[in-house]
Amino acid sequence: MGTVFLVGAGPGDPELLTMKAARVIEKADVVLHDSLVGPGVLALISPKAQIVDVGKRAGQKLLTQGEINSLLIDFAGKYKTVVRLKGGDPSLFGRAAEEIDALRVARIPFEIVPGISAAFGAAAAAGFSLTDRRAASQVLFTTFSRGETVKSLGWREVTADTTLAIYMPGTDYAEVAARLLDAGLSAEIPCAVVSQATRPEQLIRWTNIGALFNEQRLPAPAILIVGEVATRDIRTIGEKVSTVSFGKQEIADFVPQSWVKN
Amino acid sequence: MGTVFLVGAGPGDPELLTMKAARVIEKADVVLHDSLVGPGVLALISPKAQIVDVGKRAGQKLLTQGEINSLLIDFAGKYKTVVRLKGGDPSLFGRAAEEIDALRVARIPFEIVPGISAAFGAAAAAGFSLTDRRAASQVLFTTFSRGETVKSLGWREVTADTTLAIYMPGTDYAEVAARLLDAGLSAEIPCAVVSQATRPEQLIRWTNIGALFNEQRLPAPAILIVGEVATRDIRTIGEKVSTVSFGKQEIADFVPQSWVKN
Repeated sequence: MGTVFLVGAGPGDPELLTMKAARVIEKADVVLHDSLVGPGVLALISPKAQIVDVGKRAGQKLLTQGEINSLLIDFAGKYKTVVRLKGGDPSLFGRAAEEIDALRVARIPFEIVPGISAAFGAAAAAGFSLTDRRAASQVLFTTFSRGETVKSLGWREVTADTTLAIYMPGTDYAEVAARLLDAGLSAEIPCAVVSQATRPEQLIRWTNIGALFNEQRLPAPAILIVGEVATRDIRTIGEKVSTVSFGKQEIADFVPQSWVKN
Repeated sequence: MGTVFLVGAGPGDPELLTMKAARVIEKADVVLHDSLVGPGVLALISPKAQIVDVGKRAGQKLLTQGEINSLLIDFAGKYKTVVRLKGGDPSLFGRAAEEIDALRVARIPFEIVPGISAAFGAAAAAGFSLTDRRAASQVLFTTFSRGETVKSLGWREVTADTTLAIYMPGTDYAEVAARLLDAGLSAEIPCAVVSQATRPEQLIRWTNIGALFNEQRLPAPAILIVGEVATRDIRTIGEKVSTVSFGKQEIADFVPQSWVKN
């Protein structure tokens, strides 16, 4: 019996795969992948491997989660290395949990290989921290679906010092903006929409909640970061930055010698 | 002038470095690293590189953030590749933002290389999803510091279907548990403490908020995952899992042929 690897494909740039993910993908006998997985990552799959796109949508019916679970179990009976490749990280907004439970019920060995989730790719690309301590103390990873109430979203109470990383903000930014205002957030709070983070097609739009109403939709996959951290402004730096040059001796003046190797 | 790379070292397992992080670390002329970076990752640094441990604590004074900023600026004037290596991901609970601002003020080119944050390493190791849709809709990445009020933590309002990933839960789990109960969470809500996730020394303790009062502290770095997802129980699977075997023809019955390669 084979092993099923639930592998995070990261945000798109194939260099942002973990070394373990790359190794597992290269040796896979069969790969079942989502539509969010980028072409650069798919290019690493062996030409001998069978590839099943389980996330194809264009006019064709989607596989149900039960059908995907069944495929994983069936492939594990036939192949040594079965890879279930998911955009970002498998533990965030995928349906890994249902696949894991199906594999456990079927007593099939599995392993989860984490990946870089889109919010981290977006923050790295945009050059800010999700929890810049001068502006935020925590970050909520959430999603947006049309028709949900503010109550079910739970955004109302996590405001001033909580960054929101909203996955799949959808096609209607005005509805997202309305929900954010409904939740009591100020129109001046900065937002960054990062589309196709870390891919060559990456786009970043710097805006705020008030202006989000009129922003044109950027191509999916996109993520919306909401909060004081989502800005290009340079904050006051708490401590003076020295501009003097340090020689080894000067470094030694404030770093114990044992800390410095070579 | 060189470039400063703010690099995520991931949760510990060196195979969970991104390929880009590994490449940058291997070519670094100088590496400034935190105490949370694991030995397996540090072993990738070239023997010719200078290594500065900026997170050493044992009885010795810590570098201030301003001193670290100054070192980065100084090294960038002398070396081509300066690596600032941080445990997990640089954009989450590090002080990357202050370093980024200092580099921008000093007009030094920099790049952020994301890493696998501890919560993802922990979820992968423990075998659950942070946002299992049958039990959670979102996840709050937060920290715990002694003496903070529930209000400032903002946990009260993100309860039933929000997973909490609490970084640095500290030495006193009873205080964390008391805060969770104060915030209105039920004593029966499951918790998993994952210590040194993805390292050979990894330990997982499966517990709940009520029992967390009496749990012995596990070695740092540790993360506490709180929520209905943090369990080894197998949930009811919504859709029947087929146990029949699929040949290529059967797969074709519900996967359009164009989806299947080879």
